[in-house]
Amino acid sequence: MTTDNSNRAADIAKLGTMINNMRIAMLTTATHEGTLHSRPMATQQVPFDGDLWFFTRSNSGKVEEIEDDQHVNVSYADAGENRYVSIAGTASIVRDRARIEELWNPLHQAWFPKGLEDPELALIKVRVEQAAYWDATSRAMVHLDAFGGA
Amino acid sequence: MTTDNSNRAADIAKLGTMINNMRIAMLTTATHEGTLHSRPMATQQVPFDGDLWFFTRSNSGKVEEIEDDQHVNVSYADAGENRYVSIAGTASIVRDRARIEELWNPLHQAWFPKGLEDPELALIKVRVEQAAYWDATSRAMVHLDAFGGA
Repeated sequence: MTTDNSNRAADIAKLGTMINNMRIAMLTTATHEGTLHSRPMATQQVPFDGDLWFFTRSNSGKVEEIEDDQHVNVSYADAGENRYVSIAGTASIVRDRARIEELWNPLHQAWFPKGLEDPELALIKVRVEQAAYWDATSRAMVHLDAFGGA
Repeated sequence: MTTDNSNRAADIAKLGTMINNMRIAMLTTATHEGTLHSRPMATQQVPFDGDLWFFTRSNSGKVEEIEDDQHVNVSYADAGENRYVSIAGTASIVRDRARIEELWNPLHQAWFPKGLEDPELALIKVRVEQAAYWDATSRAMVHLDAFGGA
């Protein structure tokens, strides 16, 4: 158990370091026909604990795709630094008001002009299951399967 | 017909411009359980005609995933320029020797040390079906469904 917990902590720390300073991710979802769509999304800047959070509107196409198929990929690319991260996870839509208010900051107003008054405001929570990263000197896979339970 | 052809030409030209100078893509594939994996891939620098080309080894995991499910996403991200492209397409594995030799250049040796002698050397061809792009000033969807036929 101690070993599992320290592996988990080390994996989370490493992945947190990799995605640090790479705020914009490409979030890929699958339609029910299997077509894969991606779009840029701003990762919420909270201490990384194994979940990633993104703001969305609950009537958007990606929410429909996630409700249809929870599998997503979140990728980060920094060509200048030659650093790339791929995260395979499962997504869910969170409409919890307290969590929305906790993560909200006024910068989001650019994308959500109605702000916290917007009844369609929601969160996409991605539970990280596997992560792989590449940089100029290394390439590694991190399996966060320990997080798969909840 | 003339209209279709000129739309097609304009769409291809626009998309070619968007991905120009963004050589490294994240290529996302689906496993048969639906897990979505992505990895950085160097786009081959040939005039864009609606298909994207990547070198691979024919015994790699992504080839297996593509043979299982042809749907892929190819995304390009340039955070500095605030420019993002998502391409939904169908992939196939091309083992045609003439095409491999045509696209080969010595820089690929870094990833494929055996070079053209490598019997596992193959190409992933992605037929672009839909593309979306975002930049600092605009956001647009381009449907290249005209290419879906072949």
